[in-house]
Formats: sequence, structure tokens, C-alpha cells
Amino acid sequence: MERVAPGVYKLALGTLEEHTPVRHRYVAALPSEELCDWPDNLGELFGEERIGFRASDRGCVVELPLEEGEHLFGFGLQMRTIDATGKRLWMRVSDRPDTELGDSHAPVPFYVSTRGYGVLIDTARYATFYLGGLGRLDDRGAVSEPADRAGATSTDELYASRGPAGRRVVVDVPTAQGVDVYLFAGPSLIEAVRRYNLFSGGGCLPPIWGLAMAYRGLNVFGAKETLKVARYLREHDIPCDCWGLEPGWQTRSYSCSFVWHPERFPDPDAFLAQMSEMGYRVNLWEHAFTHPESPLYGPLKPLSGDHRVWQGLVPDLSLPEARRLFAEYHAKEVARPGVASFKLDECDNQTRTQPWSFPELSRFPSGMDGEQMHSLLGPLYQQALLDVYKPSGQRTYGLVRAGHAMAAPLPYVLYSDVYDHRDYVRALMTAGFSGLLWTPEVRDCKSVEELYRRVQTVVFSPLANINAWYLKNPPWLQIDRKRNNADDLMPERDEVEAVIRRLFELRMSLVPYLYSAFAEYRFLGLPPFRHPVMDHPEDPNTYGLEDEFMVGRDLLVAPLFAGEHERKVYLPEGGWYEFHTNQHYEGKQTITVTAGPERIPFFVRAGAILPLAEPVTHITRDTVFRLTCRVYGPGTHFARLFEDDGETDAYERGEYGWVRLDWSQHEGGSASREGHAPMRRYEVVGYELIDAR
Amino acid sequence: MERVAPGVYKLALGTLEEHTPVRHRYVAALPSEELCDWPDNLGELFGEERIGFRASDRGCVVELPLEEGEHLFGFGLQMRTIDATGKRLWMRVSDRPDTELGDSHAPVPFYVSTRGYGVLIDTARYATFYLGGLGRLDDRGAVSEPADRAGATSTDELYASRGPAGRRVVVDVPTAQGVDVYLFAGPSLIEAVRRYNLFSGGGCLPPIWGLAMAYRGLNVFGAKETLKVARYLREHDIPCDCWGLEPGWQTRSYSCSFVWHPERFPDPDAFLAQMSEMGYRVNLWEHAFTHPESPLYGPLKPLSGDHRVWQGLVPDLSLPEARRLFAEYHAKEVARPGVASFKLDECDNQTRTQPWSFPELSRFPSGMDGEQMHSLLGPLYQQALLDVYKPSGQRTYGLVRAGHAMAAPLPYVLYSDVYDHRDYVRALMTAGFSGLLWTPEVRDCKSVEELYRRVQTVVFSPLANINAWYLKNPPWLQIDRKRNNADDLMPERDEVEAVIRRLFELRMSLVPYLYSAFAEYRFLGLPPFRHPVMDHPEDPNTYGLEDEFMVGRDLLVAPLFAGEHERKVYLPEGGWYEFHTNQHYEGKQTITVTAGPERIPFFVRAGAILPLAEPVTHITRDTVFRLTCRVYGPGTHFARLFEDDGETDAYERGEYGWVRLDWSQHEGGSASREGHAPMRRYEVVGYELIDAR
Repeated sequence: MERVAPGVYKLALGTLEEHTPVRHRYVAALPSEELCDWPDNLGELFGEERIGFRASDRGCVVELPLEEGEHLFGFGLQMRTIDATGKRLWMRVSDRPDTELGDSHAPVPFYVSTRGYGVLIDTARYATFYLGGLGRLDDRGAVSEPADRAGATSTDELYASRGPAGRRVVVDVPTAQGVDVYLFAGPSLIEAVRRYNLFSGGGCLPPIWGLAMAYRGLNVFGAKETLKVARYLREHDIPCDCWGLEPGWQTRSYSCSFVWHPERFPDPDAFLAQMSEMGYRVNLWEHAFTHPESPLYGPLKPLSGDHRVWQGLVPDLSLPEARRLFAEYHAKEVARPGVASFKLDECDNQTRTQPWSFPELSRFPSGMDGEQMHSLLGPLYQQALLDVYKPSGQRTYGLVRAGHAMAAPLPYVLYSDVYDHRDYVRALMTAGFSGLLWTPEVRDCKSVEELYRRVQTVVFSPLANINAWYLKNPPWLQIDRKRNNADDLMPERDEVEAVIRRLFELRMSLVPYLYSAFAEYRFLGLPPFRHPVMDHPEDPNTYGLEDEFMVGRDLLVAPLFAGEHERKVYLPEGGWYEFHTNQHYEGKQTITVTAGPERIPFFVRAGAILPLAEPVTHITRDTVFRLTCRVYGPGTHFARLFEDDGETDAYERGEYGWVRLDWSQHEGGSASREGHAPMRRYEVVGYELIDAR
Repeated sequence: MERVAPGVYKLALGTLEEHTPVRHRYVAALPSEELCDWPDNLGELFGEERIGFRASDRGCVVELPLEEGEHLFGFGLQMRTIDATGKRLWMRVSDRPDTELGDSHAPVPFYVSTRGYGVLIDTARYATFYLGGLGRLDDRGAVSEPADRAGATSTDELYASRGPAGRRVVVDVPTAQGVDVYLFAGPSLIEAVRRYNLFSGGGCLPPIWGLAMAYRGLNVFGAKETLKVARYLREHDIPCDCWGLEPGWQTRSYSCSFVWHPERFPDPDAFLAQMSEMGYRVNLWEHAFTHPESPLYGPLKPLSGDHRVWQGLVPDLSLPEARRLFAEYHAKEVARPGVASFKLDECDNQTRTQPWSFPELSRFPSGMDGEQMHSLLGPLYQQALLDVYKPSGQRTYGLVRAGHAMAAPLPYVLYSDVYDHRDYVRALMTAGFSGLLWTPEVRDCKSVEELYRRVQTVVFSPLANINAWYLKNPPWLQIDRKRNNADDLMPERDEVEAVIRRLFELRMSLVPYLYSAFAEYRFLGLPPFRHPVMDHPEDPNTYGLEDEFMVGRDLLVAPLFAGEHERKVYLPEGGWYEFHTNQHYEGKQTITVTAGPERIPFFVRAGAILPLAEPVTHITRDTVFRLTCRVYGPGTHFARLFEDDGETDAYERGEYGWVRLDWSQHEGGSASREGHAPMRRYEVVGYELIDAR
């Protein structure tokens, strides 16, 4: 077992395949000693001798220990499984993540334990994890079965799970004759996650505008229609920083030409300039499948896989030459000034009887097969388009439909076509275990109440996206798809818009807080959105939570769903204040909260200083956020805000600083600065003590 | 390409694995020249040079031709896919066959083409079949894509299938470094199926009582409760030949002890004798997973896989010694006189996050791994229990939850826990493509109408089973599970019972017809239950049919479903008479039929003689069926009925004959006998001419 970074160990088992997530990671930097200065508990937990391995003609198998009472979390973006203990999960890239089987847009062969460690199996294969539950012939006693199942009167009863039987994790890796196993020390669960994120290269730091509101217009909008709706938002003071163009901007999509559509966008530069003048950053939809009419087709053809998708090439983006061609073309022909980011669609695989993507049996020039490429296409594609922005030093923050291991430094947010609100919340809660980001984006809705509830969730997510790709008008003017596209708007649209505006403004007021949470993701590996178990692995009440999550260090968000106006919330240890009512609750209890359709319940940690910005409609290079700092509870508190230019990679060369906010009952509040921020982004206009006890 | 039987060719590609369906088949006899005396069209269709093959570290890939307009059917028991053209199907053993993905209790890597041939890929791996739809880089032109998908306004529209693109079938076989490909000549689709069935050893011939009614009692019933309900059926003249005991007969189930339960069945022999006196044959539920308390545990342990299921052993039934131990123990200790068959439960795998079966990574003493064993456990388990009856020469007819290729001679009928009525009908229609039998068994119901509709389907299936394993009383006395078990019977139970009795009697009147259809399955490979495309591959109107099927040569059954009292029926070429109304219809048209809840629409082919027996409640060794022969339409007709002892393998030594029924307008009807039947089973009491034109 080799120590490869502070608290990170590598155990090489058998022969590693040439194409794995670690081998294809974007950021090679390892976390330094001072960044992981927590105790290294791994030696106390288990050593190499407790890790089993065998290879056969069907692949290889790794066995790891699992103790009584230990609970496991992770496995990438999961919509149905949070506590994975006792389950079998399959790490298959799929556009149907709404199952319990493990299928995901971003399956990650990584898990963390409540005992305080993490495990990464470095493979691009569709590995199956048995997380307890396998009983072996040579097991002694351990397994407990009901004496007689014969009396069951339903199949549910008959086949009811008996909880984990075998005390081991078994990983079945097809084809591969070996894997590297990475072990991440704690001492507790969250430090294992942080070590994993830092080992991946640290979390991404989005440009600050990326944390503001985003909107995507109808797929066939040209410049004229886009500008019209974009102007509408400005005229109605509806916050929005990022505007997404869907497939219609290209001459060919499905597959893609990567060429601006001459009728819809006769003068892309003029269009982008007009958008820019209004303060919008433009995001372009695309996928990697390259249409025969694309200028990239000829150059990429010899560097592509042996199967087509929608007639298009599947470029082998693991090849430096393919990536260079792809990025250079995008930099030169596509990403003109004003194009700030991309949406990378369709790079996942499909679990359907008529899939459109390339088959697992595909072969690529790099030697990868289709299975490996499905696992790695998401990350490789993100890397290729990051290269577009590297020369200019501009940061980007895009959307992507597939991810895998080592994703933390990639500034892309996952999304899906499945649309169950509760699934979307679970995805938000699980993504953070494995260095992923997720947006529960809002499309059409069955009721205004559902629209409110969904918008309330999305404003508490990594990317507050309204995805109106099949809606002519914003969904708050008409929630119904057909009527919306027929310009048959809702009579109550003004009131609805007012509520939506307030929710967007809530998001805007939180941007400084969120931006600082992302800075901690970048530097400390701390996930900005996370499941409560991460902060409280010692509290079993958190293990089963499926609909409440932490945002940054101090907010606990408990969304409501259409049809509900009250819910139970488990408050972990400590004291908590409900944001809207300022009511104080002691932690370690389950409470019931009520909230009308216009409000989402969320809680601020007692002892926190929450800086709330005066909302702006969009963020410019010079925006200075005017902050009211809400101080929760008596005593002495401090908080800090990250400050830099908000847009470029200058922070990586030290051009950033922290604004320290202090408050005590006697002296009130004060702000001080440390570091080398190139500008001042925050102005504190006041402190407000909340202490309702 | 080697000719291994008349019209059957083998192409050995790469290195065949040691464990495959053909290598583990039960019946080694090949079809003789005179049994397949149809023209061999394979040479005209395609030769070896059009079959591609490559192997890599992930397994091997086979490519086969697919022509424009060609349609493919097969792949074992499929509940959602009938016409498989353009789809991807995965041959994975699963207890959730209600998907479009290929998962099935009995996935069979075999398909037949409307061009008149069949293909078997001899593998126990979870192979994936791409049936058209894959576009390769080197394809020229062919693929047609809509010019611009950008205008789609829903994901359904966006991702709508474009029909088969690549003109090839591609089979992705994991792990294996080779497969044998078997090609079955036509000249039409049905002959390809017949050659496959004959190559498998011929269809099974059940004992004649197996085609009568079957009933399974509550799982915890002991001798006393069983006898009570069994007596009730006799007292109420409700036909039933086979009584199933569910898990409660054993001291341990989940896993199984294979030991009679001393409290529930204090004297099994006396119980069996009492059942036998009433004319019942007893079927015993079990699965192969062997409980530590079973007498078989010690002997089987060294012959078992390395994982447990419900604490029990997974015996490696591919080992002759394990099979011998298993069969001999069953013959000696379990299958006393009166135990006529078994129900082999749980031998499928599970598609869930908490599966109970052994993992694919299991290892077995024979060298099989878990994936291969999942594919072959169903067939091997059936074979082991067939060995129980071999010495006595008694025929058996049981139930099984998993099957695979080469299954035709195995007298077991598939069933499931999923319970959608339309899925059950589709399963009935697809099973016949691949040498499988299926029962759409009836449990509880939401309405009396649903009960009628389900019973109507099951009486037109290979095994007319009422599975009351979680019902204390027969479901027609109370359809609701809870009330049923609380003895809270329906007020209208007498009327309901009368309807059910009539439906059971309909089944009983068809037993001679069905038995003869099975004899044709045995000798000619002709599936007794089959999709209309089998008889009419040249008629594209049959390809999409999902709810009507052929029974024997002359019946077309068009079931109704709860909530419906009329439906459309496509009548293939020829003339047809609706059975109840005697109304005549010309074929090659879609008609609408109406039927109240008590009747199922079905059609008799014009020109047929349909022998209907006077219903009996059960079939004894001496039962002589009194037949009224309904003659459909004018002209000259004949039919034939299979005649033997109905119970033993004596027919295999030539002790059988055929009763030939003749009818002409001038001479009326006559019956004559040929062959060596040991007894007379049929007495013709009259002929009835149906000619409503």
C-alpha cells in the first residue's frame, strides 16, 4: 500500500487497465500536506491484509471489510439510494437514474463510510458493488434468516430484505484484470470526502455569475426571439446572468455541425454583443457527436470510434490530438466573445431498447472500448471544452449530462430529463459524496404550486437553472407546455411572476455566501451542497434523510413538494433558526414546519453570521454586493467571504482574499480583509441580531 | 459451417466455453431426416462469409446479416417486446421481465426471421443483441436522420426512434472467447422454429392430466386444510387434476430442507393416498437452495457454489454427482406415490438492489461462474427433477421460474410474480418462438370481471393454474386477499363459481385437442401456443399483434381485459368462425368483437373439425373422452387425435396411435384408428356442422 498524498493510499491489485478515471483526470496536482492536516486514521481502521483480490476470465473481484453498524454512502449521483448499506449498486452510465440499481448519469466507483474513510476503485468498467448482503459458503454463523418464510402472504413479505448478511464489500469489475484501490483517511466521513475531492484536484470554483440565475430559451429561438425574451427579463427586473441557447443555434444538431445557423443567427457577434450589453453570458448547447457537414468531421474522422451516433462521429477525446482539434475549433469558430460556457448534452448512455448512443462493443483509436468510453466520455468532453477557455484564463461553468470519478475540479453541473421532484432532491443530496454537482432544473409544471416548489429547490442548488427549451415563454407566465407555446398565458401571471422574482432574488442575496462555499470546495474540498450525514456521521438519525440538505456551512434546506404545506425536518445537533420566522429550535430532534406555497423552509445554524446581499438582476465585473449580516443567536461569531475578480484564473496565482466578518454582543459587527483580492466585492451595510429565544 | 442435422448448421467461432446451453442440453437426439423433410433454404439466404466474428478482452462479437423489410422474433419469454427488429435486447435472467430491455425469466439467445431461418448463439453469458440500429463508421449512406431535430418540443419527440439503421444483427457476448452459432433453415419461419425445437429434442409431451385444471393452496396449509378445500372442489364439481402444495409442506423453506413438515403433514403417505382417492395429483413447491438442516446439505456441500442463498447451498447441478444425489434423495424421500410433479421456484435471478440469489461472481465446482449458472440453473434444475421420474417411466409436468435455450423437451411451464394481464398474454405469445411454455396463472383480483378475464386467458394456456398460495379460499369465493383470508366471502360467490366452473369445463372439453397439439409439439416441433406471425410470416399485419394467439392448429384466441367488453381482432388469411356465436368472418381483415364478462372471444379455422369432450372434473387412467366434433364450414375435413396411456413414457417405445376424424357433406363423420395405442381414450358421440354463412 503506497501513500500517494496525505491520508491517501494506493493499493495496486493485478494489472491496471490503460484507461481509468485516475489516469484520465484533468488536474494532476495532489493535495499538499498543509491542506490535509487532519489526523490520518487509516492504519487504525484496516490494512492491506483485509483487502481481497482475484482475477478470472470474466474480470476481477475486490473485497473490502465492512463492520457491524457501519453505513456507506456515495456511488455518484443517485436518485433513489442514499444509504447504500446492504444494497447492490451497478456503476453503469445511464440516462435513467431513477432506479435503485445504481444506474446514473454519473456513477462513481467511490464510497465513504460512517467509520471515517473512503474507497475509490479506479475503473472505467461498469463495476457492481455488493455492500454487504452476500453470504459465502465459508461464512460462520453470522447470517440471520427468519425461521420460516412459508407463512408470508405477499411477495413483498416473502422477499423482504434481511439487512446486510455478509460483513464485506465485494466489487465485481468486468473485463479488467486489475484495479488500483485508493483509500482515503478520515478521521470522519467528511474528511474522507474532502481528501477525495482534493486528490481529484480540489473542487471547482465557478465564475461568480455562474451562481446567479440561468435561463434557457426555446430550442428553435433565433437571435430575434432570444433578445425579445432576454429583454423581457430585464424590463421586469427578473434576475438572470446566463442565457442558454439550445440546439437551434447550429445548422445541424443530432448530430452537431458546431456551425452557427445562418438564418436564426445571421450575425452571431452582433447578437452576442447585444446580449452582453444587457449583462447576459451566453451558454451554447451541443453534444460531441460530429455531423458529416461539420468542418470538424474530416479532421476528426480518423480519431473517432467505429460506430456512429445520429450519423455523427464519436471523437475519441482521450487522444490529445482529437482534444486539441476539438478545443481549437471551438475556441476559434464557436466560442466568440460572449460565449461563456457550454451545455454538454447526450454524453450519457441509455437504458432503453432503442438506445441512440454507441454500443459498449465499440472500439476507439486510443484502445478504449465502448464501455470505458461511456464511463469517461463525460469527463473527457468536459476537459476538452475547458481547454477552450484555458488560454484566456476565463473561468467557465457549464452543464453536462454525464460524469464519473475525479470530477470535483470540473466546473460542470449535471442535469437530467427525468423530472420527479423528490428524485431531483435526492440527486442534490447524493452528488456531494463524490465530487459532483447537480441542478434540479425547472421546466414546465402541472400547477403553479409545483412551479414554486421546484423553483424553491433550484435556487438552493449549484446552478439555478430555468430550462425552457421547449417553452416559448417563461414557465411562470404559463406552466402548461401547449398553452405556453400558443402564447395563451395564465391570467394570474403577474402575481406568479412576482413570487418567482422574489425567489430569484433570494438566490441573488445568497450569491456571496454560495461563492464562499465554493471557494471552500476549491481549497478545502468541502462540498457546498451535501447530505446531513456528512456533517454528522455519528448521528444515525441522519442516515435515512432523503429530503433535506446542507448548503455551505450554515444552511439546512428542507424543501416542500407540490401538494404539501407542512413537513417533518430532522435538525442535527446544535441550534437552528428557521429563516423566515426566525423561530429557534434545538437540534437532535424532528420538528414539523409549515410553509405556504411561496416559501421554502430553511434553517440557519445558531452561531452563524449569514451575509445577505441586496439582490441585483445580474453581476457585472464591478458589482459590489451590499451585505446585511444576519447574526444568529448571542455570543461571538465570525464568518468569511471569498473575494477575487470573480471571472478569471488569477485567484490561482494568489490574487484573492477573504473578508472576515466578526460579531460579538458587546462590540457588534466588524469586517476585516486578508489576502490579495484585486478588488472589493462586498460592502457591509449592517448587522441584524436574530435571537428569538 | 457444419451440417449437424437436417437444415441445421453449426458455425464454430473462436473457442467455445465449457458451459453452454447446447453442451448442457437434456436430450441429445437430433431430428431425423424424415422428420425435417422440408426444403432447406439456408444456402439461398446467406452463407458463412456473411457472418462476422471478433474476440477481445471483453468477450466476443458476432455479426449476422439483416435485410431490408426483414423482421425478427424470439429471445425467449418476452413480456414487452414481440417484434424485436430495431431493438437492443439483453439476455439476462431476471425476475422482472416486465421491461423492454430483454430481461426475462427465460431469455433465450435464439431468434427467427420472417425470411425463414433461425439463429441460436450457444452461450450462457448475458449476451446483448442489437437487431439493427447500430450505425458504423464505415457504413455508406444508408442511415436516414431527420434533417433537424432541433425543433422537437418534447424528449419523446427528440429521441424518437428512427427505425433500424444499420442492416445487421450484432451480438455482444461478454467474457466468452467464442461461440457456436447454429443456423436453422426454414423454408418459412415456423419450420425454423420447428427445426430448433426438434434439434432441442422435440417438444415435451405432458401427461394428459397436466393439461387439465390445476390449483395451488395457501402456503401454510397442512394436510387437514388442503383436504378440506380439495373436497370442496369435488363437492362443487369444479374441475381440478393437480393440487399444488406451497412452501409449508417442508420443515424449512427459504432455504429448503426437502423434509415433510411433521405438524402440517404428520402422515404424508396417508395424505397423498387421500388426495389420490379424490383423483388429485400433487405438485410440491421447492427451490434448489439447500438448508443446513436438510439431509442433502452434508452430501451436497462439497458440490456447491461458494455463495449461499438464504443461508442455503447452491448445488452445482451441472455435476453428475450433485444431480444424482439430488434426484435420488427426491425419489426416495420426497416424491412418494402421489407426488406427480414439482414447482421449481426462485431459480431466476433478481433485478433489484437487494437480490437474494447468488452473485454473478460466484464460482462453482464445475468451473461455472455465477453468470453462467444463472442462465443454466433453470434447465439444470428441471433436468435433475426429471431424473426423479425416469426410473418409473412416469411423465411429469411441473412449474419453473427460469428457462433458457434447448428447453423444448423439458415438461415445465414458466410463471412469474409480476401480474399485469397484458404482459401475461404477451408472454404467452412470445414463449412459443423459443421452445418455452408459460402460464398466466390467476391469483387474487381487483374485480370479479378481472377474475373472469384472467381465468379465460389461463384456460387457453399450457397450464391452467389457479395459484392461491396466499389465499385461504379459492379466489372465486372472494377476490380480495384480506377478506379471503378472513373467510369474509363474497355474497355473489355462487354465481361467480358457476361462471368459473363453466370456464374450467371449457378447458376440460379442449383437453383432447390440446393433448394432440402437444403430441405435434413432441413429434413435429410445432408449438402448441404461438404468435400468429408463426403461421403467417408473409403477412406484415401479424407482426405487431400483441393480444391474440394461436392454440393448436385451428384456434385463434383473442382475450379481453378487465374494463373492456369489445376489442379488435386481426383475422389472418382463411375463414374463421367465432366459437360462441358461430358467426363467420373472412380472414385478412380486422374485425371488432364484443363479449360480456363471462365469455372470451375465440375463433375456429374454417375447414377444421374441433373435437369437444364432455367435461370431467378430473382425468383418471381409464377416462374415455366423449367427443362432439364440431365441423366448421362445408366441404371435406379431417383432424386427428393423439392416443396413448396418457401417463408414461411407453409412447416413446411406439405405444401410441392416432384417431383420424373425417367428415364430408355427403358422408357425414367417421373415426378411424392407426398406430398402436394401448387403449381407447376417445369415443365420438356425434358431429355438428357449423356453417352460418
